[in-house]
Parts: sequence; C-alpha cells; structure tokens
Amino acid sequence: MSTMTAPAPSSSSKNVETTPLTAEEARKMNAYWRACNYLCAGMIYLRDNPLLREPLKVEHIKNRLLGHWGSDPGQTFTWVHLNRLIKKYDLELMYIAGPGHGAPATLSNSYLEGVYSEVYPAMSQDITGMQKFFKQFSFPGGIGSHCTPETPGSIHEGGELGYSISHAFGAAFDNPNLIVACMVGDGEAETGPLATSWHSNKFLNPIYDGAVLPILHLNGYKIANPTILARISPEELESLLKGYGWTPYFVEGSDPDTMHQKMAGILEHVILDIRAIQQKARSAAPGTPTERPRWPMIVLRTPKGWTDPTEIDGHKLEGSWRSHQVPITDPLTNPAHLALVEAWLRSYKPEELFDESGALIPELQELPPKGTSRISGSPHANGGALRKPLHMPDFRDYAETFELPGQLEVSSTERLGAFLRDVMRANMTNFRVFGPDETASNKLQVIYEASGKTWMNAMLPEDADGGDLSTSGRVMEMLSEHTLEGWFEGYVLTGRHGFFSSYEAFVHIIDSMFNQHAKWLEKSKLELRWRAPVSSINLLITSLVWRQDHNGFTHQDPGFLDIVTNKSPEITRIYLPPDANCLLSVADHCLRSVDYVNVIVADKAAHLQYLNMDDAVRHCTKGIGIWDFASNDTGQEPDVVMACAGDIPTSESLAAVAILREKCPSLKIRFINVVDLFRLMPEREHPHGLSEREFDSLFTVDKPVIFNFHAYASLIHKLTYKRTNHDNFHVRGYKEKGNINTPLELAILNQVDRFNLAIDVIDRVPSLQVTAAHTKEWLKDQITDSISYSHDNGIDRPEIRNWKWPIA
Amino acid sequence: MSTMTAPAPSSSSKNVETTPLTAEEARKMNAYWRACNYLCAGMIYLRDNPLLREPLKVEHIKNRLLGHWGSDPGQTFTWVHLNRLIKKYDLELMYIAGPGHGAPATLSNSYLEGVYSEVYPAMSQDITGMQKFFKQFSFPGGIGSHCTPETPGSIHEGGELGYSISHAFGAAFDNPNLIVACMVGDGEAETGPLATSWHSNKFLNPIYDGAVLPILHLNGYKIANPTILARISPEELESLLKGYGWTPYFVEGSDPDTMHQKMAGILEHVILDIRAIQQKARSAAPGTPTERPRWPMIVLRTPKGWTDPTEIDGHKLEGSWRSHQVPITDPLTNPAHLALVEAWLRSYKPEELFDESGALIPELQELPPKGTSRISGSPHANGGALRKPLHMPDFRDYAETFELPGQLEVSSTERLGAFLRDVMRANMTNFRVFGPDETASNKLQVIYEASGKTWMNAMLPEDADGGDLSTSGRVMEMLSEHTLEGWFEGYVLTGRHGFFSSYEAFVHIIDSMFNQHAKWLEKSKLELRWRAPVSSINLLITSLVWRQDHNGFTHQDPGFLDIVTNKSPEITRIYLPPDANCLLSVADHCLRSVDYVNVIVADKAAHLQYLNMDDAVRHCTKGIGIWDFASNDTGQEPDVVMACAGDIPTSESLAAVAILREKCPSLKIRFINVVDLFRLMPEREHPHGLSEREFDSLFTVDKPVIFNFHAYASLIHKLTYKRTNHDNFHVRGYKEKGNINTPLELAILNQVDRFNLAIDVIDRVPSLQVTAAHTKEWLKDQITDSISYSHDNGIDRPEIRNWKWPIA
Repeated sequence: MSTMTAPAPSSSSKNVETTPLTAEEARKMNAYWRACNYLCAGMIYLRDNPLLREPLKVEHIKNRLLGHWGSDPGQTFTWVHLNRLIKKYDLELMYIAGPGHGAPATLSNSYLEGVYSEVYPAMSQDITGMQKFFKQFSFPGGIGSHCTPETPGSIHEGGELGYSISHAFGAAFDNPNLIVACMVGDGEAETGPLATSWHSNKFLNPIYDGAVLPILHLNGYKIANPTILARISPEELESLLKGYGWTPYFVEGSDPDTMHQKMAGILEHVILDIRAIQQKARSAAPGTPTERPRWPMIVLRTPKGWTDPTEIDGHKLEGSWRSHQVPITDPLTNPAHLALVEAWLRSYKPEELFDESGALIPELQELPPKGTSRISGSPHANGGALRKPLHMPDFRDYAETFELPGQLEVSSTERLGAFLRDVMRANMTNFRVFGPDETASNKLQVIYEASGKTWMNAMLPEDADGGDLSTSGRVMEMLSEHTLEGWFEGYVLTGRHGFFSSYEAFVHIIDSMFNQHAKWLEKSKLELRWRAPVSSINLLITSLVWRQDHNGFTHQDPGFLDIVTNKSPEITRIYLPPDANCLLSVADHCLRSVDYVNVIVADKAAHLQYLNMDDAVRHCTKGIGIWDFASNDTGQEPDVVMACAGDIPTSESLAAVAILREKCPSLKIRFINVVDLFRLMPEREHPHGLSEREFDSLFTVDKPVIFNFHAYASLIHKLTYKRTNHDNFHVRGYKEKGNINTPLELAILNQVDRFNLAIDVIDRVPSLQVTAAHTKEWLKDQITDSISYSHDNGIDRPEIRNWKWPIA
Repeated sequence: MSTMTAPAPSSSSKNVETTPLTAEEARKMNAYWRACNYLCAGMIYLRDNPLLREPLKVEHIKNRLLGHWGSDPGQTFTWVHLNRLIKKYDLELMYIAGPGHGAPATLSNSYLEGVYSEVYPAMSQDITGMQKFFKQFSFPGGIGSHCTPETPGSIHEGGELGYSISHAFGAAFDNPNLIVACMVGDGEAETGPLATSWHSNKFLNPIYDGAVLPILHLNGYKIANPTILARISPEELESLLKGYGWTPYFVEGSDPDTMHQKMAGILEHVILDIRAIQQKARSAAPGTPTERPRWPMIVLRTPKGWTDPTEIDGHKLEGSWRSHQVPITDPLTNPAHLALVEAWLRSYKPEELFDESGALIPELQELPPKGTSRISGSPHANGGALRKPLHMPDFRDYAETFELPGQLEVSSTERLGAFLRDVMRANMTNFRVFGPDETASNKLQVIYEASGKTWMNAMLPEDADGGDLSTSGRVMEMLSEHTLEGWFEGYVLTGRHGFFSSYEAFVHIIDSMFNQHAKWLEKSKLELRWRAPVSSINLLITSLVWRQDHNGFTHQDPGFLDIVTNKSPEITRIYLPPDANCLLSVADHCLRSVDYVNVIVADKAAHLQYLNMDDAVRHCTKGIGIWDFASNDTGQEPDVVMACAGDIPTSESLAAVAILREKCPSLKIRFINVVDLFRLMPEREHPHGLSEREFDSLFTVDKPVIFNFHAYASLIHKLTYKRTNHDNFHVRGYKEKGNINTPLELAILNQVDRFNLAIDVIDRVPSLQVTAAHTKEWLKDQITDSISYSHDNGIDRPEIRNWKWPIA
C-alpha cells in the first residue's frame, strides 16, 4: 500500500464501530465482492469459457483487449457495502460512477442484481448469458466501457471527466428521500468542473432535498501519472475537504478483511449522520433558520487495480498506473502472461460463487436489495419514467399588446421572466431555473417573486434589502456554468424540468458538456426504447454579441450554434424569436418538449415588438414566414428577398427595408423572418427542414437573398448550400470585428446594419445599380456620420436610437 | 464591514510587524491610493472637467455610464503596497488582474507610473491628457473595461473569468527572479478552472521558477449575489486554502489607516517568506531533494466598492453588490445623485494630488518604482520583446525512410516525440510540453528522455520504475485542460514557447479559452504595433475520432475545427498532416511561428506512410497537392477527383482508389491531399487561400470531387462554397454515428470508408453507372462482410488491417 496513508485516523471518525460485521456477514460480502470483481475482469478478457470450467486458452481471450480495470474493485467494494445499508435502513439510493471507464463495476452489479437480464433478456443469469455479457463488453456491436446510456442504473456516463458531483446534486435536489452515492475518481478530481463542484453543498437544503454522499476514491493514479489528491499530505487533504464544507471519513488499506470492517463501520456511521442531519432539519420548529450542514463524505484509499497480481515481469502491478486499463496486455501472445491472467481470475474462486447453471449461488443472491431498491434498478436513473409534465400557465396571458408592429420597445426576456415566474409558482417541487449570477442581469429577476436564489451560506442583515436569497430558493446561481449545467442535467435525467440562461459568449464554457449530453440523448432516444423521454435542456442564450457596448470584444461570440448544428438533428433545436410574444411561444413549446437540447437566442435589452400573440404563435409554429407588413411584393415575384434570423438582425433588416421603400419605392421586397433555424435545412436531413418546394416558394429560385443573421454567416451557408437558390444567398453575420462600440457602430463594423444591408440590395438588384447610385452615396455618408457621432458622444444618433418601423 | 471577518487572525500571521509604516509613509501611500481611486472613478464618469476645477455638471458626465468600480479600490490598494516593496527589495514583479472588469485599477496605475503616456502619447500626464484618458475608457472608439491587449502591463484580459492563477503560473515558470502578484476575484474563484488552478503550486519549482503570490480579493459580491468564499466561515476558508497547499495571510477591514499598516506588514512578511523559500531551495547542497514549499498567499477582505458612498437612497452602497458596476447610475437625470457623485469624487481631494498642470504632485511621483521596475512597464507583460527563437534541431533528421509510399505503418506522433525531445534538450529554459495525463498515451513519451514530468508532490519508491517524475521536469501533466492551456498561454505571453497535445474530443473543454486567446492575439497583432509577436499556441489534436475502438461515442468529436474557423484568419492555422514526415515538417513550421494558434490534427496510432522527407516538405509548403503515385490522370482532365484531408481519411481514400483502379481500370482519377486546410478558402478571405485559378486547376470546374474529410463534412462546404466547382463537391466526414467500433466499422457507419467512397465515385461518374454496377454490388457485400466479421471477432478483417497501398 501507499506510504501516503494518513498517520492517524481523522478526528471525525470517532464513534465508528470497529467490527460491525459478523464473520458470516463479512464472509458473504467478500464473496459477493469477489463475484463482482470476477465479472469485471471476465468482461475485459473473456469471449468464451466464462466460468473457467476448462483451462484458459488463447481462443477464450478476446482478440482485442479493451476496457479499464483500475477503479473497478474499489467501486464494487463500495457497492457491496451500500447494498448492506440499503437493506438495513431501507434506503432509497442511487449511484454515480465518476471514475472514467469504470463501467465494469456498475455492469457487474447490475448483472448480479438481475436488472441487466431484465433489460436485456439475452444476457441471462446463466452461463450462456454470462458469455454474451462478457463478450459484448467493449466489443464492436456491443457496449462501451463507460456507464453509457445502455447501462441500467446510470445517469452519468463519465466519458468526459468532471461532472459526477454536479450530476449527483442535480439528482438529489427535490428528492428528499434520496441518497446519491457519488464515487469521485482522483483523476477527475483534478478537473476544474469537479474542483468547484464540491461547493454544491452550499446549495442543497436538508429539508427539501436529498443527500449526496461523495466517496473520493484515491486509487492513486490516472492513465500514467499519480494523482494530485493521492499525493498531497493527509493533513492537506483533510483540510481541503473540510474547507469545501464536508466532514471527511477515511477508509484506507488493502487487506480485504480489515477493509470490510472499516468500510462497514464508517459507511453506516455516515448514513446515520445523513439521516440525523435530515431529521434535525426536518423536525425543527417552523421559522428556525436552516443551517448548512457539514455533510459527511468518505475518502476511500485503495490500491489501483486492487486484487490484481502484485507484479508483472518484476514491475509493480497492483497499486500502480499499470493497472489503469488492461493490467496484463498480451495473454494472446505470451503464454506466461496467459497463465498469470488465469491465476488471477481463478483467485476469485468463481466455482464457489456461481452454481452449475452459472447463476450466483443462493446465499449470495440474498445479499443485494430487491426490486426498485436495487441500485442498478433505481427508478431515478430512468428519470423519464418518473417525469410529470409541468403545470403550465397559458403563455398567451403574458402577451405584449400593441396596435402596430415596430412601434413599442420592450425587453423580451423581461416578459419571459413573468411567464417563468408563474411556471415556477405552479411547479414548486420539480422545476428550477439556473444562471451564473446573471438571472437579474438577463432581466429575469421577476422570477424571485416566486422563489429566491438558493443560498445555504451565511446571510447578512443587508441581504434583506434586495438580496433575494433563500435557503429554500429554486433559482440556482453560482459563477460556474459547469456546475449549473451539471446540476441541470442531473435534474432532468432524474425526471424533472429546468431553464438555464447564460451570456452568449460564455456558453462556450460548456461546449463539451453540451456535446456529451447531446450524445447521451441521441443514444437514449434513438436506440434505447427502455429509457423514457426526459425533459429537454432549455438554454436561453442572451446578452448577445450585438449588445456589448460595455463588455467589448471578449463578450462577442455567437459560435455556440455551430457546435449545436454538429450534433444529431434528432435532438437539437435552435430558435431565434424576434420579439417577446415569439419568445413566449417558443419558451412554452420548449418547456413542454422532451429529449431535446433547445437553444433559444434572445437579447435582454429593449427591442422593437412586431407580432401580436396570435401572429406570433402562427409564426413560431411555422418557424419561418413572410412578414406582410414589411413586404410589398404581394402577388408577384419580388426583386429581392430580405431574410433575417435573430432579434437585432431583424430590427436592422426592417430598418433597411424602410430606407429602401422610401428611397427606391418601385423595388419589390419580400421580408422573411426565421425563428426555427432548422427550417432552412433540407427536410431529409432534419425533421424540421422545409421541402425543396416550400423553400423555393419562399426564397425564390433566382432572386438575390440578403440574409441578415445573428451569428456567424457561414452557418446559414452550412444549412442552405444544397438549396436551389443558394448561389444568390448573400449572408451577413458577425465577423469578429468589435471592441467597445455602440450598437449601430458594432453592426456597421460587421455589416449587419441597415445602411450596409441597403447597399447590399442596391449592389445585387440590377435595376438599382444606376437608379440608386445616389442613394448608395447617401448610405455611405450615413455610415460615416453614425460612427463619428458615436465616437463623439458615446451613444448612437438619436434618430437611430428612437427609430420605429414606419406605418405603411 | 462584513460580519464574516475572521474572529482571530490566522496563526500564520505571527511575526508580522504591526505598524511597519511611518506616519509619513502611510500618509503618502494613502494619498497615492486616493489618486488611483480618483482616476478609476473619473474614467467611469467624466468626459470633461477631469480635475473638478469647476462644479460638476451634467455636461461633464458621459452619456452612457459603463465600467466597473467594485474591485478597483482593493486592487489599487494592493498595487500601492506592491510598489513600496518593489522599491525596498528591488523586486521584479508583474501583476495579473483576475477580477472581471477591473481595468480601471490597472489603467490608473499605468497612467500614474507614466507608462500609459509613453505607449499612448496623447494621454499625457496633464489635464488635457487626463481628459482624453478618462473619455476613452469604456467609450466607443476607445478601450474596454477589462485589461485588454491595449492595456500596458497586462497579459490577462479577464473578460472570461477563471484563468488568472494559471496565467500567473505560466508567467512564473522559468522566470526564477519574477514574482507574479495575482489578484483573484472571489467571483472568478467560483469557476471550475480557477478552483483547480490553486493546485498549480504542485508544479512550480522554487529553484528554477519564480513565485506566484495570489491575493484572493474577498469583496463579497459578484454582479448580483454574494460570493461563496466570502460567506463560508473563516475557518473553512483557511482550511480550504491550506488544503490547496498555500499558507494564507488575512488582511481584513475597511479603515484605510489600519488597513495600510496591516497590508504593509503582511505583504512584506509574505515577500520575505517567498525570498526565504527560494533562498533555502537554491542554496541547498546538490542532491538535496527539492520539497514543495507551502507558498504564502494573501486573503484581502475589503468592502465592495470600498470608499464609495456608504449608501444611496437608503440602500447600502459601499460593501454591497450595488457597487459592482457603476455605483450611481443616473447622475445625468437625478440632480441629487449628480451631487452625490461630485461629493464622492471630491472626497479623494484631487486638488491635493495633482498640480496645476494636472500632473501628479512630485512627492507622489516619487512613490512608484521607475523604468522596467514599474509594474505596468514589466517587460514580461510584452513577452514578445523578450522572446528568443528556439534552437531547432533539423526536423529532417527525424525522417521516416522507406522505398515506396503506402507500405510502412508507423505512429506519426511517435516520430514527432523524438523531434520534440530534442527541441526540449536544446531549449531547457524556455520550452515546455503540456498534456492532460496523455503525453504517453499520445505516444510522445520519448520526450521524457530529455525531461521528466513536473512533480513537486510526494514521490514513492515505485516511481523510480517508469514514473518519469521530476521536480525539475518540463513536461506538464495535470488532468485539467483548463490549467494546462492557462499555463501555456501565460508562458508564451511572457516570451517563451510550448507544445500542447490533447485528445481530440476533449479539446472542446477549452473552446472558450481558445476563443479568448484568439481574440487577444487578433487585437495584439493587427492593432497594437507596440506589442511584439509572441510564440504561437501549438495544439496537437490526437486520439482522433476515427480510432476510438475502446472509448466509444463520447470520444468522437472533431468539431474543434469549426470553432477555430470562426476566428480571424490572421491568427488561425489548421494542419492535417497525412503521415510522419508531413507532421514533422508542420511541427517545425509551427514551433518557429509567431502570433498564431496552430492546430495540428494527427492520430497517435500506426498509419501508412506516404511521402519521403523531401516530398513531405514540398507538400506541406504548398499545403495542398496532387499525389502522382495515386493518380492516373496525367496530362488530361480526370473523370473524378478524390480529395482528402487527415491521416485516416487519406488512407481510406487511397484504398478506394486502389479498388477503383483494379475494378475500373479506365477511370481517370486525380488524387489530392490537403494538409493546410485554409488553402481551400478564397484568397481574399484567408492569407493561405488558393486563388480561383489555382483552385480550379486542381479541383477542375465540373468534375465530381469526392472529398474525404477528417471532421464534420460541413466545414469543407463552409470553406469552399464560393468555389466554381462547389456544386460537384461531395464531402464525407464524421456524422455522429459511432459506439464501440473497429476502425473500419466506424468508417463505414460514417461512410468515410474505402467501399462507400468507391460507391460514391460510381454513383457520380456517368460512365460507371452501367459498367460498374457489378462492382457496386461487390462493394456493398464488402461492407456487410466487414461489419459482421468485426462483430464476430472484435477486430477488422485481416486483409484490411494488413492493407498496403499497391505498387503501381
């Protein structure tokens, strides 16, 4: 064992029973653990001869050895001990496997608990099923070595590391009876997202939420390196975890007998501590302030690859990075190593554990809990089955009303806030709102009328004056997009609902989390009928690129949409509602939907409003449409199509139309607004795609299209390059030109402004090139004047700021 | 002040002088601090009347008030105290401003130190210059409110939060005399990247590296919320920081007189502690193991908006989130608030601080250090000026040699490793290699022969057996892409060089860091002539999507290139070398380059080799070219162009050509390989873009082009949609189809495999549609057979695995 073991047990380990298990209990639990470990090793190595009933030969070994052994025994050890306490205390418990590639631990337990065979009947609990179960693991056409969506009992794949604790907290929120045991790998503990997610304990309420029990698994090594937390001093480690607000208990060693007693004692102590904390908080007199508990956690220090051969060819194997993946890599070609594999596998004595048919012997079958108490059968891990639709107020009741389009300026997100407030009020146990310290900045603060911001830290007297903090708050604000997204994912994967708002530029912080969740959804939705649909991840992207007057260049990046469009069309949706009523309609649709990531792009500043509620619903339902009030091509082919997507581009395109209709009255303009971006894609590539016929009838087959786009222009080309009229698409969008600019100046720099758009039209409509030459010069003067006005005054020219769409 | 102040000073604060400053010193330092704070507030509010020589009127106030006051006074306070010690101990010190939008603190000091006027002569140190200096701040046509590239003395913009400590460490590595004072905002401290970056102290050597002095600035609030670290108990905070391996010293309060004495005493103690640690390590007898010091750090707890009005309209202002941005928002329209702004500004008594001309009075001018000792004039903060080119071995010496193309299989990254090892050997003070626990996995481990992995944690006896750990190692491995990228950026921005390798799927973790660095480079390179070019960020993306036999779907994401192509063409480069010699040529080019982010895509597994070194250099220099050995269209127009980019797509395209040449011998094929992806772009849009003429001569104007691409197919369309022959481009790439698959199976699922490519050709060359009908059936059978073989055996058919390009 490592020399890093703590010299003295943590002071917090007092009152722990030292030999809680009878010899018989310990023997059985160890036998069950051996069965788990045998299965873990078996699935890595064996394609045949699953119970070693004949001598191990090369033809029993898989042709390619793929899979990870390192963290499996420590995880199965924990699982066996969790089982004991689930039964003893009738716990409702689920398990998150943080360490990467540790799926064998979950799979083996799922198989032994019978859940695996229930979900996949071919993998029966007999020798035939076991052979299939072994062979399919990390095998082409089979399953992966992470806790992929195919894994019963899993909501956390762990392919990309760092999100185990935030997923666990997401599962625990609003599940007061649930304990989420969360194994944290010491490798993943080095990631930023994991490092800050320990602070999630400041956002969990002991009365209304369940508990998260982190088990930090110090097995000492990553792929090829020692881990930081396994090599800092024991005092530093304890100090760090206490500093994060936890009460750590240490279980350290390698001798199974000793370790079983230690783990049983400490785990029981910890479970009882969780219950006591909850009991105390839940039985307090009404009005008693809820204090943040110092929740218990466990540090489990065991050798990497625990119970595999001590050494190989003179090199340390157990307790070394060499045990990370496949500990013995060449049994196919090295007879001595084949023998070593066999000896190792036989060391678990499978013949004592499984009966003639290949089923676990009855005395071991008795050990795990039954039915929905089985960890791998937790209903929470197939959260869609528990999901209840939201009680939804009628979004039409929040409509912005006005007489004529383009006259009123309103913050669309502020309207949305009122709707979300009432969604919150109607769903006070299964809906949460997430935002990185930006809910108010994003103009959604009216939500606080329904529920404050979750805060289990110290409060100060001044918090009463507009702090909106509450120990039972349901608005989750922490300055970590990673943690918020992790909570949100854990929350929806266990059957609940939510809404996330983020500054546009910084949603890139969770690009990779989006990718991983999208992949999870794709497999779950398209390939796994047993997984019930879960609520969509609803991401409101706001504080948009075009309104960064104060934040400048760093806050200008609309590229998240490019990431989204790389993922499966079956699970991605992008909406760019141009005004408040459209935003309400879109938000209502998204909150009711399942199995998507819905990305809604809408700025928080005040913008012109165009569509009354009925028109907005019609427009959003179609997802794309001609705006008659801005078009003058009725009954004929237009000279030009002005298309737009996004609130600010829409406003500039409209202003360009207003200019053109005044200066070039004979020009026939068709004005198209796009809300649902995927309407642009071919229908064979996206379920929302327009047919060729529909597309051509909107965009014509040969007229110039001036498309003003919210994000990078290339995305419109990516979506439309197969369309008939694509060669005539002239797209404007953000092109990385910006600094501290007024709205108009920034638009001008990127040529999405009214003046440049009008010039684009003049340049592309043959009839205008002579007749509008004068207008073009005037437009160029407007550009120059606008910029010099803003540089002198720090604001846009009043006629721009106060601009309204003219009444036709 | 907050009630959260620690009840007792930290035990580590013993031996600190309690009143180190004479009354005269304290008075002067406070006056200098007032001058800083006056400038900070002035730049937020004033467009005129900069020294308040007339009563403040509405016309002196900016039309839009933008900027952030909250953290400024705490930062300027720190800066004033750093100045004292720089002079007293002749320190070489640079400053990182972590809190977002804290630029006024840096700008005001830069102005007072004279550096700002040296860089921007119009902003002179007189009343005219001060007026311009005020007006330009957070103003259209002016500068931002972060420490943008325009800010002298800054290498850290801080627009996106979380990277201050990793940037600071990057600056400190290999700069043994440098102290990097790093102000950490308590908001940014909640981010994941910051939370794990505290562990950077395990990777800094006290002998060869400088020191980082973190100053955690607890001002208590983010935009609208209290911060976690300001509201946990003082005991937890101390425990947390000690757990991270630091020795924290606490400076807490709000009374300036008391705070000056406290800060002076503790900062001096801390600086002397840093020197003592360094002295001890550097004077140790040779062979003494270097231990990891518990470096000192400071926790500075001051009210948010310190020294602004105590309250406004009955609400707490100083010490509240209301002081985060512009504390008094409406002086333009509210006369009482205009008066409040004036009273606040006059509270700093500018008339005592600046002389008649508007210059700082002489006794205060004496306070800051001079020349390159000025913090804002640190040469390290314009690292390009210090940068020395690498000593480069001749990459041709590492060439893979072979007789004929497509016969030999080699891991290209393994060859690269040998080259990088010798680059390391020749540059042992200014070159580092970065990788998240994957250097060996990515086959670069031969680098360890030149230098081990940096490790300042405990070592165990078994580490001697292949651990490759070293306290003076120059290979940086931590399981945090964020920290590595932050170190790397800090390292190159201070004038050094590096190389980063990452798994392809997980480079998305640092999408947003790439975006921010690219934006920094773009401004620096294109707009700021005073910033000298810095070394490029070289990112090797490996463990590619096409070789995830063991990792599966989570590890399949080639979308980083889409992110890269959104940024300015002036600073982005993407290379897809098809074999080892090309990779060597590309890597040599990248390591010599400046002011780019170079993205190199190359798989780590063994692949066929095609070009001898001379051909590889020629090919990579052109960036795109016809491969004669695979083409048979000499002297005529081909029937089809087979194009490819990326090592694995190249191999599959070649195999398709081999099949077609055998089965359809009359077909004229042109084979094009693309190394430099931006050659595909129009030359007016990217400096590397091919002219129309060059492009058309390669790709023809009307023949089908079957383009086999490494990443998502849409990227090729994005780059080529304006090309003449674009309508005939048929691009294959990754389309999110995968799981645990053999290489060929995964290729087939995404149709980038030899068989589907050959079918694509048959479908698109009119002459083949009848004559090759039989071949097409045969190809379909191959697909079916290949998949069923892999599902049975877990590996690809031997004839595929052992496939070699046939000799013509």
